[in-house]
Formats: sequence, structure tokens, C-alpha cells
Amino acid sequence: MSDPVLFYFDFSSPYGYFAAQKIDETVADFGRRVTWKPIMLGAAMKETGNVLLIDQPIKGDYCRRDWNRLARYMEVPWTMPDKFPIATLAAARAFYWLDDGDPALARKFADAAFHAYFGEGTDITEAETVADIAEPLGVDRDALLTAVQDPAIKERLKIETTQALEAGVFGSPFVIIDGEPFWGSDRLWMIRRWLKSGGW
Amino acid sequence: MSDPVLFYFDFSSPYGYFAAQKIDETVADFGRRVTWKPIMLGAAMKETGNVLLIDQPIKGDYCRRDWNRLARYMEVPWTMPDKFPIATLAAARAFYWLDDGDPALARKFADAAFHAYFGEGTDITEAETVADIAEPLGVDRDALLTAVQDPAIKERLKIETTQALEAGVFGSPFVIIDGEPFWGSDRLWMIRRWLKSGGW
Repeated sequence: MSDPVLFYFDFSSPYGYFAAQKIDETVADFGRRVTWKPIMLGAAMKETGNVLLIDQPIKGDYCRRDWNRLARYMEVPWTMPDKFPIATLAAARAFYWLDDGDPALARKFADAAFHAYFGEGTDITEAETVADIAEPLGVDRDALLTAVQDPAIKERLKIETTQALEAGVFGSPFVIIDGEPFWGSDRLWMIRRWLKSGGW
Repeated sequence: MSDPVLFYFDFSSPYGYFAAQKIDETVADFGRRVTWKPIMLGAAMKETGNVLLIDQPIKGDYCRRDWNRLARYMEVPWTMPDKFPIATLAAARAFYWLDDGDPALARKFADAAFHAYFGEGTDITEAETVADIAEPLGVDRDALLTAVQDPAIKERLKIETTQALEAGVFGSPFVIIDGEPFWGSDRLWMIRRWLKSGGW
């Protein structure tokens, strides 16, 4: 059995959102499955000295246009959130808490959280909002609100982020296949060819 | 007759080199032609507050790996130059000088300059080296060496770079089709779909 393909992302990353629509089917075609790993990209960006795309004078305008263009092309819902970027600690912690008990449920939650933020433009910073997103999936609201304040879950997200940085992750989305890194939603084509050929 | 597709690049840009292998055929499939426009990317990067990929701690390592991987995939020559990045003023000026008289010759020169730098790893900073590259194409060596010091040619490159910035160019490669901007060698797929469909 092959190791899962690792899919790192931040719930506040537009290109993470776009890649999230495709990553499962992209690797499933080659008999592989995906482990989703939300991380705190802010920590990673501090490490690499990078600055947010959106804060760069000319590049920021390009990116806004590109996100709209990609959404139209992929025919996925897109609303540029009024508050962007945001801290996605609550959503990421909720993900890992769900993932420990029921990975399929965590996967559905990830879709719902991405959809709320980038599909509908809802600010998902607050734990209460994250609970609103999870509740229709059958998640106990109070249990979630307790979990995202649980020191063990907080620590879990820190460790996942640290391990991601150690593995060379510096952006979102970021995919690692058997140790081989692929950065960006634009590299799904290369991921497909890599899996098909076994690498080159 | 459609306007030409504008292809902006810096001779010191690895992703510019990779896109340069494909841009002509990519747009020719849709009956369009390309105007090649070398620019001084350093000026553009100062404007956007961007920093060189290669200077970013983790991202730099990724890029070196990615350039090797892309070159193997595309089966194009690749040698990481010892001196990187470099100032490509001489090559860019030579290009515009040639382009004014014989665009087809300038196009051949661009291939040869890219090949010298990234295919063979030769430092192409110096005008003498640029003359070495142009001479086998039938270019008069002394005329070239004079041209790259000509105030009018120097000014031409400045103007091309300024106009590129004004058009929203902030990286290399950068393609503009009828006003629509595409950044990065990873967007050849999107350029193809854009030209095929007329945009969306």
C-alpha cells in the first residue's frame, strides 16, 4: 500500500481552495489517496521572508483578477471575502479534532469551511462560525467549541505546522508525494504526470 | 489582424527560459504571433517589494529542484549557472538593437542567449560574451558592441521596462494577450484555453 499523498493548505489560501477542488480526484486516478493537512501558513511565511501576495502593489491586483478568472474557468463558487486574509486557527483545529475520530467527516468539514470562506465570503475566524459550518454535518456544536480550546488540539496544530516547515513546505497549496514536493495549484498537471510515470 | 501576444521576460529568469521554449508554438496554434520583450526584472521587483526566489531560505531550494525537474520533463538543456542571477542589460539591449532591423534574427539571438546562460551555464553579463553569442548568427561583432553602449538603445530598454511595469508586469515570464495578463511558465495551459475560447 502506497503512502498517502500529503496535501498542505491554509483555509485562508485562495490557491489552496482551488487545489482542494481537484486534489482527491487527481491522485485517485493513480490509485493513491490524500491526507489533508491544514497548517498555519503565517508561520511558514515568516520563516521564508515571504509577504502576502495580496499586499504586493501590482501582484495583489493580478491575483484578485486571477482568482476570479480561475473560479470562472473551474466553475466553482467564488466570493472575495471582505476580510482577507484571516487567522484560521479555529477551522484548522476543528479539522484535526474531527480527523482523529472520523477522517471522512473531517474531509467534508474542510470542503464546507473552504466553501463558507471563499464560496460565500463568510469570515470563518471565530470558533462559533466554525461550529455553524460543522453542525449541519452532524458535529456536536459544544463538543467542537470545547475541542478548539483543548491544549492538546492546539498543540497538534502547532506540531503539524512545524513538521510541515521541516518537510520544506513554504506555501499553500503544497503537495508532497513520496518525498517529492510540488508547490501551487498550477502544478496539478505535474502531479498527474509524476504519479503516472513514477517520476523522472 | 490580431495584435501580437506580448511575452515579457528577463534573460536571467529560469522560468522565463522554460516558457521561451514553448510560447511561440503555444500561440501559433491559434493563429497568433509573439512579440518578445526582454525587460530588467530587477526594476519590476523593486516596485512590487518582491524578493528573488533563490534568496528565500526554503523556497530557493525548492526552485533549484524544480528547475532541474522541469528541464528533465521538457527535455531541454539545463545547467544551473554559477553566477545567478545576473544583470542582463547587454543581452536585452542587443536584442532590441537586432529587433529594430531584423525581428527574426533577434528571435534567434534570444534563443541563443537563453541557451548560453541556462543551457550551458555561461555568464552572459558582459557585452563581449553577448557578442560571442550573436556572432555565429551573422551579427557584426563591433556593431553590436557599439550598439549596446548607444544612449538610444539604453533608453529603449528603460522605456520597454517602464512600459511593462505600467502594463502590470511584475515577474518573468509574463504574457499579455489583448490586455489579459498571465504570470508564470505554469500558465501556458491557461493561455492555450484563453486563445481557444476567446476568454471567459
